Amino acid sequence: MIQRLTIVGVGLLGGSVARAARARGLAREIVGVGRDRDRLAPALADGTLDRAVTELAGGVRDADLVLLALPVLATEQVLPALWPAVSAGALVTDVGSTKARIARAADALQPARPVRFVGSHPMAGSERSGYAASRADLFEGATVIVTPTEAVAPGTVKDATVFWESLGARVSVLDPDSHDRTVAAISHLPHLAAYALVDAVETDALAFAARGFRDTTRIAASDPDVWREIFLANRDALAASLAAYRAALDRLESLVAAGDDGAALRAALAAIAGKRKALG
Amino acid sequence: MIQRLTIVGVGLLGGSVARAARARGLAREIVGVGRDRDRLAPALADGTLDRAVTELAGGVRDADLVLLALPVLATEQVLPALWPAVSAGALVTDVGSTKARIARAADALQPARPVRFVGSHPMAGSERSGYAASRADLFEGATVIVTPTEAVAPGTVKDATVFWESLGARVSVLDPDSHDRTVAAISHLPHLAAYALVDAVETDALAFAARGFRDTTRIAASDPDVWREIFLANRDALAASLAAYRAALDRLESLVAAGDDGAALRAALAAIAGKRKALG
Repeated sequence: MIQRLTIVGVGLLGGSVARAARARGLAREIVGVGRDRDRLAPALADGTLDRAVTELAGGVRDADLVLLALPVLATEQVLPALWPAVSAGALVTDVGSTKARIARAADALQPARPVRFVGSHPMAGSERSGYAASRADLFEGATVIVTPTEAVAPGTVKDATVFWESLGARVSVLDPDSHDRTVAAISHLPHLAAYALVDAVETDALAFAARGFRDTTRIAASDPDVWREIFLANRDALAASLAAYRAALDRLESLVAAGDDGAALRAALAAIAGKRKALG
Repeated sequence: MIQRLTIVGVGLLGGSVARAARARGLAREIVGVGRDRDRLAPALADGTLDRAVTELAGGVRDADLVLLALPVLATEQVLPALWPAVSAGALVTDVGSTKARIARAADALQPARPVRFVGSHPMAGSERSGYAASRADLFEGATVIVTPTEAVAPGTVKDATVFWESLGARVSVLDPDSHDRTVAAISHLPHLAAYALVDAVETDALAFAARGFRDTTRIAASDPDVWREIFLANRDALAASLAAYRAALDRLESLVAAGDDGAALRAALAAIAGKRKALG
């Protein structure tokens, strides 16, 4: 049982953690921290939050679990102010989509004062954003990647794992750099590819878009503020994934252009379709 | 009321037309033509077909509507055998995903014997294929593009339009070349992009794929035989769409790499997200 759970940023992910913790009775008190009291009002009004606070230090004081549910650059920026304010022994984690920069920023703060911080990345989301899109069941069956550096104690990883599992998630552990390379490939590259697809198609042709186009580009409706930050924070790993993607496009294009009966093209498509089907 | 509807190729699309025509009582008799009698057996057994025939000329004889529901290259190849066998006055159409080559092949046969042929492209489908995936409601609310050349009489276009509308579809009319450019952009390019995404991602990383990746790459599980043919048949228009796509990727990549605060990147993503949201 968490005595006080403080959630900094009560949007899609923070709001969903609050709702899930409330629904499952995991925390005695749930405190929401946000810059704008009006935007916290709905979560207070519906009973998801017990208190809404606009001042960070006051909000995290005496919390035994602090969740940072902010965009990635804001998470990195808030750490210096958060660090001296959290209780000794409190578990602090975040939900950022990239982890190496946040992990480095946290590790740099540890010598001044040890805080039980470990990064988390819940692989759950929506092209919608904000508290109105939050759901108590968002993490049920979702994967959460917990990303300790070598400086993080095993007990901290274990407590973060137990927390996410208590919300219904499955937890994997990866170091921050491996995490960032992985999500560049399976999340950031597909987002960039989807944005580019929508950008490349002329509006006249869009009138004929069917389910395939809609499915393939659904994530191009994602929040531009969130994705600007993710792309910038994970720039290097994204560039490597993009290089692999261009090579795959080149290979398929040259098989299409080959002018033969397409046997090699067919073999390539069949191998890829098999790889995709194995994913379910 | 159609007296005899003959469907050549009783797979996903042909089977769905047969089921829809049966469910809506549009045809007195529905004949299926296929090379392999065993593969026609399920549609005969469940009452969707009245007769199953393995010989093309016999199957289309006396039909007042012939639907070619074959892969695109097979459609083109079957036209010379079909042409002398169809009844005078029968409406002949197809379901191929590319139209210029089929239209040219049909126009070339008209001087020898006039046949009321016009191409159709139902923008409905599935990553599944075969009769087992067919559904009576596949065309309800779907868009069908009917693609007359200048040689096609208006009455032929009208009859094909009425037929598709009677299955619940909305019909648009485009010339074959405009059609091929449009579907290259909104269907063939997204398929190639999705195949390349799956190809580019290492299998280890795939274990972490969430809904975004699954949605974006669902069509990469599509039938490799069908897509080999489509990519080859629409090679030139696809190359033009791919060039536009590479330019869009280049632009986004350079905005990510710019090293500034990402204001221009954010503006580009916001414009694209708005374009995608307008699609619904």
